[in-house]
Amino acid sequence: MSDKNKSLLLVAHGSRRASSNEEIRQLTDRLADSADGAFGRVSCAFLELAEPSIPDGIELAIQAGATEVVVLPYFLSAGRHVAEDIPELVAPKQSEHPTVEIRISTYVGAAEGIIELLLSTAAESGVIES
Amino acid sequence: MSDKNKSLLLVAHGSRRASSNEEIRQLTDRLADSADGAFGRVSCAFLELAEPSIPDGIELAIQAGATEVVVLPYFLSAGRHVAEDIPELVAPKQSEHPTVEIRISTYVGAAEGIIELLLSTAAESGVIES
Repeated sequence: MSDKNKSLLLVAHGSRRASSNEEIRQLTDRLADSADGAFGRVSCAFLELAEPSIPDGIELAIQAGATEVVVLPYFLSAGRHVAEDIPELVAPKQSEHPTVEIRISTYVGAAEGIIELLLSTAAESGVIES
Repeated sequence: MSDKNKSLLLVAHGSRRASSNEEIRQLTDRLADSADGAFGRVSCAFLELAEPSIPDGIELAIQAGATEVVVLPYFLSAGRHVAEDIPELVAPKQSEHPTVEIRISTYVGAAEGIIELLLSTAAESGVIES
């Protein structure tokens, strides 16, 4: 089901390497292509070293009409960035926009499908025989 | 199909935070539980800041009887670590053990299923309605 008012914000660390940030932007484009209307808008933001920042990314989504924003931490481990930095950047935006629902989803490393993803990736390398 | 001689080595960056390294070890245990015999051994190694190192991880797999080792980079972007550091650590072990097949698989961020994983993770946050 399509919902123009739902926005997905992929949040990455950000890198000094422009190509790493570009990789995130390209992934975001592919995500938008595959979201199949479940999210009216898919965009990305960065914790540091690249733009937009997380607060700016949330603000842009809201200005574009989002009434629900899912912040998806593109991180593999539950370090300080996931546990503290991202929530601390999201909270003031939530206070600023009390009628918008802003949720932080599970980070990638704790995603339910991560085990299958790893096993299928290992399999693609041609080692698992059927 | 089970193959005792195939070994999967999950390679993470390594962290100063013991809990982050422990998270990798726990993920490795879950991976071993789910590998369903496709790999006789599933273990992890770290690029830096934790043990075992990547060469030691490969060596341990071979000493345990592996004739094929799949090195899976647990990284989200194609930075220097994935493009250079890991291959440069793997190459000498391959030279040292020419009869063992050592392959480096796709890193997590470029895995075929990453888009679906991200969308299902966003959906789990309760925002996608059916």
